[in-house]
Amino acid sequence: MSAQTRTVRLPVDERILEANDEIAAAVRTELAGRGIFAIDLIGAPGSGKTALLEATLRAMAGRRRPAVLVGDLATRRDGDRLARWCDRVVQISTGQGCHLEAGQVRDALGQLDLDGVDLLFVENVGNLICPVGFDLGQNAKVGLFSLTEGDDKAAKHPYLVAEADLILLNKIDLEPHLTFDRAAFQTDVRLLNPQVPVLEVSATTGQGMEQWLAWLDSGVAAVGI
Amino acid sequence: MSAQTRTVRLPVDERILEANDEIAAAVRTELAGRGIFAIDLIGAPGSGKTALLEATLRAMAGRRRPAVLVGDLATRRDGDRLARWCDRVVQISTGQGCHLEAGQVRDALGQLDLDGVDLLFVENVGNLICPVGFDLGQNAKVGLFSLTEGDDKAAKHPYLVAEADLILLNKIDLEPHLTFDRAAFQTDVRLLNPQVPVLEVSATTGQGMEQWLAWLDSGVAAVGI
Repeated sequence: MSAQTRTVRLPVDERILEANDEIAAAVRTELAGRGIFAIDLIGAPGSGKTALLEATLRAMAGRRRPAVLVGDLATRRDGDRLARWCDRVVQISTGQGCHLEAGQVRDALGQLDLDGVDLLFVENVGNLICPVGFDLGQNAKVGLFSLTEGDDKAAKHPYLVAEADLILLNKIDLEPHLTFDRAAFQTDVRLLNPQVPVLEVSATTGQGMEQWLAWLDSGVAAVGI
Repeated sequence: MSAQTRTVRLPVDERILEANDEIAAAVRTELAGRGIFAIDLIGAPGSGKTALLEATLRAMAGRRRPAVLVGDLATRRDGDRLARWCDRVVQISTGQGCHLEAGQVRDALGQLDLDGVDLLFVENVGNLICPVGFDLGQNAKVGLFSLTEGDDKAAKHPYLVAEADLILLNKIDLEPHLTFDRAAFQTDVRLLNPQVPVLEVSATTGQGMEQWLAWLDSGVAAVGI
């Protein structure tokens, strides 16, 4: 970025972030009061965010009461996919917006009946960069990578990895058809975030889903404490 | 995006874009004067931008004189990979920047000996959204999608598809292991950009590379006219 654009941009970004953080804090308070554990799911386009949520909603049917907000530039496709498995889904169209902001989450929550809900998934816009800086009032950020993206993606997205409360490595079922060094990926993650759990999953075959569901259950349990 | 942040943001974005466009115009004039055909390669993280460029540089060795600029938040990995196949590579580290800007391209070009160069690849930051709005002084925007991302990604990234001069659909070799409706993808592309060519390629197996190289050759030839 040139010095010129930096000078113009930074003070405004700070104002936007401050306004966002205030709304996020209010969202967090609201969700905590209702005993809802909230996830901000961040991953690249095609990393499998929606497929993972479909499998997750299916697996927890009758056991948890989830709600889902899903952000996309355009189309209602993800929302429609998720609505097959959950009766509390709001699609947020961001237009040219490259990430969700707390105001969008607050407004979308206003459209939902949250009575009895214990788990909120916010599927962010497919983007490994911009969503990281915007607090949405979540309890946990989940960084979703997939095997098809290559084993260098943790190192190349250090801000997401450093801030993540959980890293999911999806599409593990495709390993026989790809060149992906899982040890190298793990090493990069460890350098950036020594404590973060890394779960290998496949939304397609169900591999690793039990651990992911257990992680979600412990998150919900912790909110109640 | 909330009304509040919109109000703050738009006037500044316009100023940034105007400053960017002025620099981009100067870059474009400079490149045209040198007879260089310039590509802005835009794709998601893991779509195979670097792998495609590796295969491209290898295939055109001794026939074209390429230069490469490559943007990433962090690491020199892509630049190092490409430097094996090209002696004119500049890695641009964007920090938290989610896209390249024209000033970065101008500055990086200043670090290169451009004598005899006829083709410039700018590998943008892995992001299907933010890079689209920033003119870099290129002759053509190439939108790179991959089969592993799913067949809905053209519809979900309408701004890139609408502005692209070429769409590449990469990782076509993985088709037997995936569910990807190529006709649906093509239909979405056609709705957004009826004229844009779509080439199916595999940087791994070389499938479709001849058509891609021919498209590049005709671009270089057109600059000389």
